Amino acid sequence: MKKGFQDHYPDHTAHCFGCGRLNEAGHQIKSNWDGDESVARITPDPEYTALPGYVYGGLLASLLDCHGTGTAAAAAYRAEGREMDTGEPSLRFMTASLQVDYLKPTPLGIELEIRGKVKEVKGRKIIIEEWILANGEITVRGEVIAVQVPDKVILDLLERAGK
Amino acid sequence: MKKGFQDHYPDHTAHCFGCGRLNEAGHQIKSNWDGDESVARITPDPEYTALPGYVYGGLLASLLDCHGTGTAAAAAYRAEGREMDTGEPSLRFMTASLQVDYLKPTPLGIELEIRGKVKEVKGRKIIIEEWILANGEITVRGEVIAVQVPDKVILDLLERAGK
Repeated sequence: MKKGFQDHYPDHTAHCFGCGRLNEAGHQIKSNWDGDESVARITPDPEYTALPGYVYGGLLASLLDCHGTGTAAAAAYRAEGREMDTGEPSLRFMTASLQVDYLKPTPLGIELEIRGKVKEVKGRKIIIEEWILANGEITVRGEVIAVQVPDKVILDLLERAGK
Repeated sequence: MKKGFQDHYPDHTAHCFGCGRLNEAGHQIKSNWDGDESVARITPDPEYTALPGYVYGGLLASLLDCHGTGTAAAAAYRAEGREMDTGEPSLRFMTASLQVDYLKPTPLGIELEIRGKVKEVKGRKIIIEEWILANGEITVRGEVIAVQVPDKVILDLLERAGK
């Protein structure tokens, strides 16, 4: 499978249930650029039901969350003219705020497309506008305010990982 | 284990990954009144990691989602002076909009308390204000705009369930 932004996260920040390549139980979503937009695709497993036949809203929120922070990280590298996972510091983002509007029920059993676009960059804070498509139709819209993980947190994680 | 609001949902609406008693793979969260507030408690499994040591934001969003719609349903019954799962129609809510503010990292490995309060009732729309506590400290605040599931959707589900 093609690598995503999230596959470039350093090991000590790659355990996220939504997108960490080192979390075997998780979704391991993979986001990539598609021009100015970012895109990730996933077909939710059948247990991610809301009302029968529709995708669980908590999963949809989770997809926006990880696609949003991934897009923020990729945008931060792009702004510095660097490839992801090259040089220091590594740029990893976490969610400060998440807004999700469920416009209509999202059908379960088909591939979903999660799309994102950088709306605003303010220093270490990046706002990503997002939407989810099912059968080419937008069913969910959302926004993630992502902030760069503080250096102190990264240092703590490295220390705990014995590095 | 003590029953929650969600255990009173009719069978054809009890498959939600977050709170459905008929979804064996799901979280099966159980919410109850605690005076004017509602409360649910859950200890997230270790795979629900964000950065190592902290709870995955997508799970926290999911907990607010299902605790919010559960609280909305219970509030709707209470407003009608009915016990849950008595009489018709059954009152089931879904999320129209979800807002989550991650105030600080939520530690993984301990029991979390999700609390909610009815903020506003406007016909079939109920707004629930929510917060999550870890070690007695608020780490997340959020809001769910819940709307009563349209009768047509319920009828479709019943038909699909062969009832």
